[in-house]
Amino acid sequence: MCELTEVHAISTMKRFVDLTADETSDLWFTAKKVGSQLERFHSATSLTFAIQDGPQAGQTVPHVHIHIIPRKGGDFEKNDEIYDAIDEKEKELKQKLDLDKERSDRSMEEMAQEADDYRLLFL
Amino acid sequence: MCELTEVHAISTMKRFVDLTADETSDLWFTAKKVGSQLERFHSATSLTFAIQDGPQAGQTVPHVHIHIIPRKGGDFEKNDEIYDAIDEKEKELKQKLDLDKERSDRSMEEMAQEADDYRLLFL
Repeated sequence: MCELTEVHAISTMKRFVDLTADETSDLWFTAKKVGSQLERFHSATSLTFAIQDGPQAGQTVPHVHIHIIPRKGGDFEKNDEIYDAIDEKEKELKQKLDLDKERSDRSMEEMAQEADDYRLLFL
Repeated sequence: MCELTEVHAISTMKRFVDLTADETSDLWFTAKKVGSQLERFHSATSLTFAIQDGPQAGQTVPHVHIHIIPRKGGDFEKNDEIYDAIDEKEKELKQKLDLDKERSDRSMEEMAQEADDYRLLFL
């Protein structure tokens, strides 16, 4: 059973090209730091970074965000299945941001636990 | 028939985390500029950016490189097929860099024509 951890570094701009130089650098410095710590935390050996930049690339919410996924040997039967997982997450994210639709949040306890675990990585 | 254009922004470092701050910024400023121009050149409407950072993420050559693919509505039947195309390119890249293996280059004329076309985008 594979454990998929994904972190969204979210910007308020719609497209990657719209970011200023400082925003571009900040976004990727953050992604690099987060990826590095998550790779260690999950005892992974590689990372997938992906931006679906625009609707025709699979982006479903209009904000620049980077998918960061710690990878291990054999985590997916075929490497490309990781992108099905990204698409699934993208749909969940859209659902969360679409306030007209019903949504099933994780519990406060689950989210607090995850935040506590990850907070320790960035002290 | 979909036209796949892919640009590799290649760094000499093996893993993304190994890049300095300046290298990280330069790499992504370049990727943003290249992506923006290629999107326009190919009359596309979105972009896919992906780093396969390490062998367990599908990286086959030990250099940080960004896959940049201009995207259009309907260019792939299923969005995820883009990643099969990335894997195919990754194999070709490995073949090109493996001097012990036979390789079939494009002709000098083809490469010169492509360079000429793209050069005009960055004047």
